[in-house]
Amino acid sequence: MDDNLRELQSINIDLACDYDCANCERYFQCDLPQKASFGKRGFLPKAKKNLETVKRKIIVLGGKGGVGKSMLAVNLAAALYKRGKKVCVLDQNYDVPAVPLMMGVADQKMKVGPKGLIPVEAYPGFKVVSMGLVLDESQFIIWFHDSKRVATEEFLTYVEYGDVDYMVLDIPAGTSSETVNVLKLIPDMDGSVIITIPSEVSQNVAERAVFISRQANVPVIGVVENMSMFVCPECGEPAAILQSGGGEALAKRMGIDFLGSIPANVRVSTTLDQGTPFVLNEPELEASKTVLNVADIIIRRFET
Amino acid sequence: MDDNLRELQSINIDLACDYDCANCERYFQCDLPQKASFGKRGFLPKAKKNLETVKRKIIVLGGKGGVGKSMLAVNLAAALYKRGKKVCVLDQNYDVPAVPLMMGVADQKMKVGPKGLIPVEAYPGFKVVSMGLVLDESQFIIWFHDSKRVATEEFLTYVEYGDVDYMVLDIPAGTSSETVNVLKLIPDMDGSVIITIPSEVSQNVAERAVFISRQANVPVIGVVENMSMFVCPECGEPAAILQSGGGEALAKRMGIDFLGSIPANVRVSTTLDQGTPFVLNEPELEASKTVLNVADIIIRRFET
Repeated sequence: MDDNLRELQSINIDLACDYDCANCERYFQCDLPQKASFGKRGFLPKAKKNLETVKRKIIVLGGKGGVGKSMLAVNLAAALYKRGKKVCVLDQNYDVPAVPLMMGVADQKMKVGPKGLIPVEAYPGFKVVSMGLVLDESQFIIWFHDSKRVATEEFLTYVEYGDVDYMVLDIPAGTSSETVNVLKLIPDMDGSVIITIPSEVSQNVAERAVFISRQANVPVIGVVENMSMFVCPECGEPAAILQSGGGEALAKRMGIDFLGSIPANVRVSTTLDQGTPFVLNEPELEASKTVLNVADIIIRRFET
Repeated sequence: MDDNLRELQSINIDLACDYDCANCERYFQCDLPQKASFGKRGFLPKAKKNLETVKRKIIVLGGKGGVGKSMLAVNLAAALYKRGKKVCVLDQNYDVPAVPLMMGVADQKMKVGPKGLIPVEAYPGFKVVSMGLVLDESQFIIWFHDSKRVATEEFLTYVEYGDVDYMVLDIPAGTSSETVNVLKLIPDMDGSVIITIPSEVSQNVAERAVFISRQANVPVIGVVENMSMFVCPECGEPAAILQSGGGEALAKRMGIDFLGSIPANVRVSTTLDQGTPFVLNEPELEASKTVLNVADIIIRRFET
């Protein structure tokens, strides 16, 4: 960005600043002195303290809806779990949280303990935190921006996570306030995994997800391509449903690592509806191999 | 809802009312007297006047991301256009507006006329209004709740639509503020078309879309199932990618009409990236037949 533009933007930010960092969409571009105080007040220090027992935090970013963010978040946590790690999936979807269904715990509720809500354990050492484990399905709330932000603050501050090696965050579609709020409230996020489907539209959104991750100083671990190919169960031939190669193209364009592909397969979606991540009981699936590989890359990156 | 609960909620609303209807997520449940003034001030009367030349307004609701809302919006407009109607697609996606790409007008911009922005015409009598026709792709804005609402107000008030038989609205994923804001700002929406994919998660979200449509007094025209089946181009056999029958199940459960299925087909996604709705140049596709049928149902409903 050239200096004039930067200066103009900075002036613009300055004039418009209402000292409400929590609701500011220009947070990551802002370098005004008053921003420094944001980290020192309100929920941030409390959230930081509460998350001290969580060693690493990985966010799955996709931008576009329906590209498989929740699928990847749940299975990435399962892959890390399979490698002997203590994990927690933090579901940031409020409209319709899908993670409890995908983890087979949709009929359970988080209980209230002495220090806050206690995550539901899908398996020993595999925790799940979701609004779907607080509200009943029939409690239909229209979530507005502020309610979501406050709910996220509460989830970060008043949930008793206990010892967790890897927290995997699943967020809703878009590159707007939900994404930014999570990244603001967890300023020490360890890495992001980008997911895209091959279509151009999805690549464009994923590109913005990479931008946001960089703006927030969260290292991009790489990109996974979902629904890249379909192997016909009738004849065994691979057939492109969407175009393919979009994930690799994005990786090249953005200078990030390509982590592998997840071919479209009916087992991927049925396992999600049935409540067991495919990584756990379908190791022969191409999708499982890809996600386990991503988990290994993450473990190598953070533990050696 | 029983009377006690209703009373409690009403008390709750009353206590919490800050007279800011534009930002209230309980708008449709609210029956406080102060709500009446919302329609009389601000943008609403101006938007209503500006939309006088638009005969019918149909909103595509899906809830979940990636189920094909933009695909259906663009092709439903194309189907109505094919039946001789003047149409306009109003794209309410701000993060990454896909409609300009899908309509082949991504390189164009809306011009400023004497009464406001002038829609881009993809074909004579087929208009497109989108934030993607205002901003350049490189202008990456993080949209916060209020900015989106204000942008929608501007689109409804300061765009010169001219004579339009059917406006088709495409909105982003979720059943939150974006959806509610559009329904608040167009209180005389003529109907909604629900779209779902077969998965249980998508059905759950679509169910909430039906609830919101009913809360807002927008008649539900029916539900379309997308990605219901995949015909292998290698062997010609149909193979379920996801489960199938979810659209019909939802229709039955919610007491709404089932309008048909759109089988997964690589032509559906390539035509979207290539910028011509499949309804216009691939009449033999099953998808085209389904969407033309929905258009005919809409025309019969509103014009006889």
